[in-house]
Amino acid sequence: VPVDDNVPAPPPTIGVVGAGQLGRMLHQAAIGPGLRLRFLAASAGDCTVAVHPDHDLGSALDAAALTAFAGTVDVVTFEHEVIDLEALDRLVAAGAVLRPGPQAMRAVADKLDMRAAVAAAGLPIPPWRRADTVVDVVEALADWPDAVLKLSRGGYDGRGVFMVSGVDEARAVAGEVFSAGTPLLVEPRLAFEAEAAVIVARRPGGETVVYDPVATTQVDGQCRQVVAPSGLGDAIDEQARSMGQAVAEALDVVGLVAVEFFVVDGELSVNELAVRPHNTGHHGIDACVTSQFENHLRAVADLPLGDPRLRSPAAMVNVIGDGDVDPRDRLAAAMALDSGARIHLYGKGPRHDRKLGHVTVCDIDVERAAERAWRVVAALGGQKAGSGA
Amino acid sequence: VPVDDNVPAPPPTIGVVGAGQLGRMLHQAAIGPGLRLRFLAASAGDCTVAVHPDHDLGSALDAAALTAFAGTVDVVTFEHEVIDLEALDRLVAAGAVLRPGPQAMRAVADKLDMRAAVAAAGLPIPPWRRADTVVDVVEALADWPDAVLKLSRGGYDGRGVFMVSGVDEARAVAGEVFSAGTPLLVEPRLAFEAEAAVIVARRPGGETVVYDPVATTQVDGQCRQVVAPSGLGDAIDEQARSMGQAVAEALDVVGLVAVEFFVVDGELSVNELAVRPHNTGHHGIDACVTSQFENHLRAVADLPLGDPRLRSPAAMVNVIGDGDVDPRDRLAAAMALDSGARIHLYGKGPRHDRKLGHVTVCDIDVERAAERAWRVVAALGGQKAGSGA
Repeated sequence: VPVDDNVPAPPPTIGVVGAGQLGRMLHQAAIGPGLRLRFLAASAGDCTVAVHPDHDLGSALDAAALTAFAGTVDVVTFEHEVIDLEALDRLVAAGAVLRPGPQAMRAVADKLDMRAAVAAAGLPIPPWRRADTVVDVVEALADWPDAVLKLSRGGYDGRGVFMVSGVDEARAVAGEVFSAGTPLLVEPRLAFEAEAAVIVARRPGGETVVYDPVATTQVDGQCRQVVAPSGLGDAIDEQARSMGQAVAEALDVVGLVAVEFFVVDGELSVNELAVRPHNTGHHGIDACVTSQFENHLRAVADLPLGDPRLRSPAAMVNVIGDGDVDPRDRLAAAMALDSGARIHLYGKGPRHDRKLGHVTVCDIDVERAAERAWRVVAALGGQKAGSGA
Repeated sequence: VPVDDNVPAPPPTIGVVGAGQLGRMLHQAAIGPGLRLRFLAASAGDCTVAVHPDHDLGSALDAAALTAFAGTVDVVTFEHEVIDLEALDRLVAAGAVLRPGPQAMRAVADKLDMRAAVAAAGLPIPPWRRADTVVDVVEALADWPDAVLKLSRGGYDGRGVFMVSGVDEARAVAGEVFSAGTPLLVEPRLAFEAEAAVIVARRPGGETVVYDPVATTQVDGQCRQVVAPSGLGDAIDEQARSMGQAVAEALDVVGLVAVEFFVVDGELSVNELAVRPHNTGHHGIDACVTSQFENHLRAVADLPLGDPRLRSPAAMVNVIGDGDVDPRDRLAAAMALDSGARIHLYGKGPRHDRKLGHVTVCDIDVERAAERAWRVVAALGGQKAGSGA
């Protein structure tokens, strides 16, 4: 149903499946325009619950919980992909409004489906193979002695991603990993020059806005640093923008799509997709006119999208748990160090390798922005630059 | 107790007395740094309650409610002044930490006390008299034929403020108003060139930051528009900054102090004070490195203060209820009109003359920023520029 923006009508109540830090930042973004949210939280300890008054408790893998939750809201969206995909089809058949829809959720919940969807959209992807057995893995390693094995489902933030060198190591890892029961995606380890990402927001009618592409730094599959603008040159930025839009259209995404790229020989290939707010857009809370979180909500509520432009060059560095140091105890030291740094803590208990927050610095000099952000992260007790997960 | 910012320690839980739009924006600001808030809400319908999970219900005029609330938090702060001042003294005597303290709350809760406190600090104030009887008012009107009568306590947003011309009108208004039982502040109606305001944040140890002074436009005592920078010239801005700091020190404010000024013949005099987040600082959510709301929380939690600088010239226009139009129903039209406008709605039901939200536009051209903000406010159904309350 096309929406006429000039007809007075209250915005819908938005149900968000998931209640982690993305939910928390969605809530923060909803307060300004006054959009009403409800969350489906897996646990009362989820970090959105501490800051938002209205949630159901239930698993996104439980069809009954999803169905009950959908019945309490006008439109359903998602802040993670670990959901019962079959339940989504039944919800749509029963008249629920899902944004994004099941077709987009399916394309991101399984890395093998993702590769197929991106290829079908005519976009470049890295070499890849599906492996259902240890023999498949060993065969792939014959061609690619340094490879990456990825669980097709359920991985996130570097979990479910395994770097292997040589047949023996691959065989050992694959033997363990197949016990998890999902097939693997096998890729050669690419000698990329850089990693980039772009975020596109898209409304039901097809209206889109595209954020400035960013350059990202990952360690063992976990995002550590994002800088905007990317500094990778106009040609690469333009590729990123047009591929981002192509993915949004191919998957008929409503909400956000984040596309992560490898840069090899000056050309992009699509590495990962997400159809939700993404770590590569967190800087926008402080650096963009309209954050990815607000534009996700606007898109999902079928409201006109906000200006995505950067207000300033910026760097974002994640606060990754280092031992049992709690960044909340280091807030005063971090604030004393840099009065302009924007500190975001997610209210999560400390755990090694866990994303506990992020720091954004806006600075006309983007390298200085990154240095400042890393210093504040160190003061908060997060893992230092260059340290692995 | 002086705090060493380098000693790891969790930040305090902050209790906020009041749960209106200022509480709502304090909560929004607390999510980033992960500060824990509790609210004392007068009603479950207060607009903070819809977005925050943790409050007590009770009146700030009820000593027992205040005492019970203070017992659940580490430090108590305020988002309005309609409180039991005597209870505050007893709370401090019993060991509660109030920021700001009773001395500052007293100086802002009563306009007669406020004038005395500002004068004692050696700062210029407009001519004024205290009136306890209709005869006092009539005598004042003999000197000032166009005058303003203000209830010393309980007024806000233009309520409790009466413009009168001539003795007959003054007698009629005063006769009605004295039935409320508080004395009046009588002032001549000043032919001011402009109105200005400044906000200062101050930590327990005396560390302060000062926001850029702004120019404000009031209609019948209600703030309608704020522009930053003020455009009133360096000399006036410098006076505003130094008077703001003087007030913060004189009242030993911890938290924020907002000082409103009249500009007469190029000189400032202090018109009003508040020791909480203030309407003349709302633009800072979108226009400053660190908003007044975050710096209020930092000050109250004894955390290092954030950079208060403007990132861009900006204009803020209030959404004042116009009849029974609900701005929430007009969100799509307003967003369609200007993709860069920052729309803030407080989740309050529509009522004529009620502050329902505000719109901030950041624009290198501050006059254009104001025009854009007014257009968006009109699209939201707020009162138009020039219309009285």
